[in-house]
Amino acid sequence: MGNPSSSEAITNPDYSYTFEGWMGHDEKSIGNMQWGAFEPKRWEEGDIDIKITHSGICGSDLHTLRSGWGPTNYPCVVGHEIVGKAVRVGKEVKHIKVGDRVGVGAQSDSCRNRTGKCSDCSAGRENYCSNEGRCDTYNGVFLNGGKSYGGYATYNRVPAHFAIQIPDGVDSAAAAPMMCGGITVYSPLKQNGCGPGKRVAILGVGGLGAFGVLFAKAMGADNVTGVSRKVVKRDDVLKLGADQYIATDDEPDWAQRYASSFDLIVCTISSPKMPLRDYLGLLDTGGRFVQVGAPEEALPQILAFDLIPKNRSIGGSCIGSPGQIEEMLKFAAEQEIRPWIEERPMSQANKAVVDMEMGFARYRYTLVNEPEQ
Amino acid sequence: MGNPSSSEAITNPDYSYTFEGWMGHDEKSIGNMQWGAFEPKRWEEGDIDIKITHSGICGSDLHTLRSGWGPTNYPCVVGHEIVGKAVRVGKEVKHIKVGDRVGVGAQSDSCRNRTGKCSDCSAGRENYCSNEGRCDTYNGVFLNGGKSYGGYATYNRVPAHFAIQIPDGVDSAAAAPMMCGGITVYSPLKQNGCGPGKRVAILGVGGLGAFGVLFAKAMGADNVTGVSRKVVKRDDVLKLGADQYIATDDEPDWAQRYASSFDLIVCTISSPKMPLRDYLGLLDTGGRFVQVGAPEEALPQILAFDLIPKNRSIGGSCIGSPGQIEEMLKFAAEQEIRPWIEERPMSQANKAVVDMEMGFARYRYTLVNEPEQ
Repeated sequence: MGNPSSSEAITNPDYSYTFEGWMGHDEKSIGNMQWGAFEPKRWEEGDIDIKITHSGICGSDLHTLRSGWGPTNYPCVVGHEIVGKAVRVGKEVKHIKVGDRVGVGAQSDSCRNRTGKCSDCSAGRENYCSNEGRCDTYNGVFLNGGKSYGGYATYNRVPAHFAIQIPDGVDSAAAAPMMCGGITVYSPLKQNGCGPGKRVAILGVGGLGAFGVLFAKAMGADNVTGVSRKVVKRDDVLKLGADQYIATDDEPDWAQRYASSFDLIVCTISSPKMPLRDYLGLLDTGGRFVQVGAPEEALPQILAFDLIPKNRSIGGSCIGSPGQIEEMLKFAAEQEIRPWIEERPMSQANKAVVDMEMGFARYRYTLVNEPEQ
Repeated sequence: MGNPSSSEAITNPDYSYTFEGWMGHDEKSIGNMQWGAFEPKRWEEGDIDIKITHSGICGSDLHTLRSGWGPTNYPCVVGHEIVGKAVRVGKEVKHIKVGDRVGVGAQSDSCRNRTGKCSDCSAGRENYCSNEGRCDTYNGVFLNGGKSYGGYATYNRVPAHFAIQIPDGVDSAAAAPMMCGGITVYSPLKQNGCGPGKRVAILGVGGLGAFGVLFAKAMGADNVTGVSRKVVKRDDVLKLGADQYIATDDEPDWAQRYASSFDLIVCTISSPKMPLRDYLGLLDTGGRFVQVGAPEEALPQILAFDLIPKNRSIGGSCIGSPGQIEEMLKFAAEQEIRPWIEERPMSQANKAVVDMEMGFARYRYTLVNEPEQ
């Protein structure tokens, strides 16, 4: 699968592995990624190199491959649900040693409060840092100028602050999609008090929504309801642990029937065509609607009267911090969370992203690098 | 000012006062209210009658007089910031005795959990009850069929559950506008943790906004900023206690200059033309925007990206419960809150509502019934 070409392989004989991966070269890359070598960021002593074993496929990967969220800086290797083994650890790194099983999510760096003025990084909310130094796991640029390349690859180089130890109770194929898909729903559930006494709805039951059902149930919510359009997912959602499933296409009066009956709604839908006002109507007094799906277009208009008479709110939540990811993985181990994952060989990544695009995933694909011969 | 005409005056010789007030008879009532007698709700033993001494003028009064929030059920006596003396107290009433100084806000009844199923009334959130029995202080209908009439009047009859004792430290002219204007901003400030460590902006500095500045400062917020369009209110707002004033017409780059610098924004603006996306941009990570002004039209469209990257939210808040009003009045007494009130004689209510409509109030008018000769 290609030859080593990075200067890294030449200048660091002790680390003579090559960084290679599935490269998108243009807007038509879904199904047409090309295997090739890439140059990782210039090594710094706060970094680690990870030999990738698993990489989840996230919807963001498709958006980025096709330049759906603005122009992508091609060539691009996507994948931000990375799990593997640390094979090189910088001198400044304290919490990871060579051989550790670690994961990386959608964010690979933040300003890390270099200026002493970042209230987000200083408070452990690196995921909300918007200062210079913030870098996504792919299609980003590190502070030292290096491009970031994702997990559909052999190796990943990342500032160790954004690599998280995977606890023994969580296997790698399951841990991978938790790094972005899992934390994206875990974080708002936790922040908004999901647990005993709460009635929680998860809107959209795809990769994120399936994690939403699993986590909300494990957190002990009184009622966990999956909401999607089609009746076809009912059995799956109930098997995932939901107490109830609403197929909106199947129950035309759903907005009235379930009005004011939830305390918390996490919305994973990323289409701007959703019936937002009806969704808000599902919230009981003081209820919170948290959007995690990110359509590019404006949300449907709402009225102040959709919010005021029942003290409702609508907010947004963005992935999670390294600290929260660590907490989630520990929780997943303790609660024996078993996400529904289909493993796909890394060599067939093109087919897997096409299947993902077609909506075939039940409910997440994890690409697996074949063990070396 | 008119003759007794209510059957009440005839059937209850012990309570031979008459209910009279400024009646709106059609959509052109602002400035054209007519003094006349009205029939209060049929007496029940959970009620009290209040001899009104003071009645604040609220923006809602104008909306209702002109049928701005849908058709008004004329004749209508507006006014839902009522203070006066209890002159008749039902046998079932425990917390009020004849002679007590009491206040009534915008809500005069709720279902009071008659069915045992109202999670709002059972939790002391009567202001969010939407069940049968809920009744606004004017232009409403009580469960027993009686119409509700407001405070531009001689007397008010109200279920005692919605009448609150006024503590000695708060004078009646100041207490009146707190019953709606005050509690409408006190409640979201309190609910969202206004206090030390918080930076709070109040959007729109009119009757509600002035209370917002006073309460936020008294709660100990680190920074309280008044935001309005014109520079003309600067001195007033700083005198009210604000740390800062932003005149958006005067600082064209306000959205950039103050981006991400508030934890909580209470928006009293009731025009749908406000620059909502720019306002949301003023919130720092995790910040909350609470709308209390209620335009009839849809709010400006927002994007999921206005909320997600900084964990922002937008919500709504509606007046306050009797328990919260009691708490607010106690707080106002302890903190010696001194709202800026202009007293206007009840006899000149028409002129006062016209002045209110013209935006002359600095910052709230309280109508005062002349003491009897």
